[in-house]
Amino acid sequence: MNWIDGGVCAAKGFSANGIHCGIRKGKTKKDLALLLSSVPAQAAAVYTTNLVKGAPILVTKQNLKNGMAQAVICNSGNANTCNANGIEIAQGMCDLVEKYTNIPSSDVIVASTGVIGEPLDLTPISTHMQSLVEGLGENSLDAEQAIMTTDTVEKMFALSFELDGKCCHLGGIGKGSGMIHPNMATMLIFLTTDVAISSELLQEIISEDCKDTFNMITVDGDTSTNDMLSILANGLAGNTKIESKNADYYTFKEALHTLTEKMCKLIAKDGEGATRLITCDLSGAKDKESARGIARSVVGSNLVKAAMFGKDANWGRIMCAMGYSGYEMDIQKVEIYYFSQAGEIQVCKDGANFAFDEELALKILSEDEITIKIVLHDGEAAAKAWGCDLTYDYVKINGDYRT
Amino acid sequence: MNWIDGGVCAAKGFSANGIHCGIRKGKTKKDLALLLSSVPAQAAAVYTTNLVKGAPILVTKQNLKNGMAQAVICNSGNANTCNANGIEIAQGMCDLVEKYTNIPSSDVIVASTGVIGEPLDLTPISTHMQSLVEGLGENSLDAEQAIMTTDTVEKMFALSFELDGKCCHLGGIGKGSGMIHPNMATMLIFLTTDVAISSELLQEIISEDCKDTFNMITVDGDTSTNDMLSILANGLAGNTKIESKNADYYTFKEALHTLTEKMCKLIAKDGEGATRLITCDLSGAKDKESARGIARSVVGSNLVKAAMFGKDANWGRIMCAMGYSGYEMDIQKVEIYYFSQAGEIQVCKDGANFAFDEELALKILSEDEITIKIVLHDGEAAAKAWGCDLTYDYVKINGDYRT
Repeated sequence: MNWIDGGVCAAKGFSANGIHCGIRKGKTKKDLALLLSSVPAQAAAVYTTNLVKGAPILVTKQNLKNGMAQAVICNSGNANTCNANGIEIAQGMCDLVEKYTNIPSSDVIVASTGVIGEPLDLTPISTHMQSLVEGLGENSLDAEQAIMTTDTVEKMFALSFELDGKCCHLGGIGKGSGMIHPNMATMLIFLTTDVAISSELLQEIISEDCKDTFNMITVDGDTSTNDMLSILANGLAGNTKIESKNADYYTFKEALHTLTEKMCKLIAKDGEGATRLITCDLSGAKDKESARGIARSVVGSNLVKAAMFGKDANWGRIMCAMGYSGYEMDIQKVEIYYFSQAGEIQVCKDGANFAFDEELALKILSEDEITIKIVLHDGEAAAKAWGCDLTYDYVKINGDYRT
Repeated sequence: MNWIDGGVCAAKGFSANGIHCGIRKGKTKKDLALLLSSVPAQAAAVYTTNLVKGAPILVTKQNLKNGMAQAVICNSGNANTCNANGIEIAQGMCDLVEKYTNIPSSDVIVASTGVIGEPLDLTPISTHMQSLVEGLGENSLDAEQAIMTTDTVEKMFALSFELDGKCCHLGGIGKGSGMIHPNMATMLIFLTTDVAISSELLQEIISEDCKDTFNMITVDGDTSTNDMLSILANGLAGNTKIESKNADYYTFKEALHTLTEKMCKLIAKDGEGATRLITCDLSGAKDKESARGIARSVVGSNLVKAAMFGKDANWGRIMCAMGYSGYEMDIQKVEIYYFSQAGEIQVCKDGANFAFDEELALKILSEDEITIKIVLHDGEAAAKAWGCDLTYDYVKINGDYRT
């Protein structure tokens, strides 16, 4: 398995583009992305669990019912959510794809991200559709830039790996930053692959994978209304189509997990205003669900996050967040460590204070990637969750997002 | 019913004191409080639901098993939680009360608040116990100051009301500020009354009341390990003892609710770093549980809180927080209004954008007490929840709490 360039265009048969069409008024940031497969692809997706769902989510769900899709259109700057005409506009975006590419509108994945509750005008999109389509090529970076909102770094990766003697590719672009909280696909992620695989198994792989990746990130505890993880698999790699859980299935699943975990860490690290990535690496839990739940509670705690910003080894807040996670554990057996490039330090043993060197702790917590290692001694299950620190800039960014 | 002075000393037979004993090293802030009833009192309490419970909680639970108590001792500066000898220290505090007052240690409510996981030394307490007891008097304010942590204003109230022709009193002191999240008694509150009432009914009243008061506050989503609401009722008002749900029961319950709601609003408004009180006033829910849950989700959202700090009428975040509350509602019927001393404005109708005057919205949101009014049109249930904005100062206070 090798990391390669190309993002969503790394897999055979995929082209992409991203432009500024004017949804973001008075700014030049790209705000409209298009992604095509040259042939129809197996498709799968996971959606937000928020009861308030963006109109694009509803249209995409309908379009993916047959497990096939061929294009993704996505705008930033407006979430097209809580608008009376939202469905009509989301459908209009799919229709524009059909008009300019001949891909049936029912084979289009549509997504939007930005402010909730402001009507989205179709005009800038229809006006610029032709130039968007004309510019399609190996432009994964433009597409990525067009879906970003308050993100400060691009989230674009690709891998090559072998299946059945054939060289296969998997790539992805993503956006994160705010309204990030684990509860099913909490951001926009578009993946492409040339692997041949049935849509049922594709769906199963991403649904399982996101329990350990995208659902284990939190930035601010707010599950968005518009989040979506989707994947297109067009089969152009020429491998024997994966239709059972054979060795190829697991190889592909592992490749996918390698890419999604990398993307997760980058999204968490680039959380709004964040200065550092916080990983909670929890082991010894009595079952997988407890492991995930307790790890998420720790990285989700505002008080833990603020302490990480202040480089403060205030492990009592970690215990507190574990305690209100809602999962059972034997508090008397808990061990807590901080870990980073600068070293490792134990701060809690048997659920109580373990005398530690504050200077070393400060050194460890001054790095930009910190792991909170927790050992429960209650069983064999483990999980990782990713988050970021809570900073002045998070407050600043979100104190006046609309202007 | 009248507001009166005196706090926890307003009711007959109660005396209090608060001193600096030295648990907070190098500072002069008061850190040890004592509260006594001249006669044994009926007692009731509600405790944190955090699985990690402070040692004082465990000792108090044991002492209140017989429904009686006569004293409260409470320190700030150290939570006496996650310490190997925590129980021994908490018991030691009760023993010191017995030694200096002759009140049996099993009739003492003990509480601690401050840093978790640092051993609490009994020495400063034992050294200053005599002067603490000697200073007992109508010193509710000293006791209040001794239990405060990052609180910036005192939380002390008292009411007088009539029961059975007798003048009765109810008073309280409280601390809030951080680690405040609705999940059973999320702070320290000590109430005193001279009403005669059975401990069973006293317990029932506070358990019910806190569902609509203390459990409806959130500052940061972190349910503390040490929080406790307790009440002592010593019967010195001379009313016929309340032993059934008669008219006196409801009069007392209403007086209690009047006082607890006032305390809740002050605790939310004085949340760490907060500049404004946010009330979510929700009506038209299909049942009480939904009403409470949705209202809490709105005031608990970091994004709503940051928008309130920025005076930004970004109502889409309110919809988003309603949507992930976990409760069912018909999104298409939602109405949202902002309300303050400066006026009222509707921003959402039928779940979608309702064109509004941004200038008026800004004026309304510039006040220091804001109400988010939500009407669901799903039923008849209503609830209120209280929170505060998320500010730079919250991050600052919690970035380095231990130093």
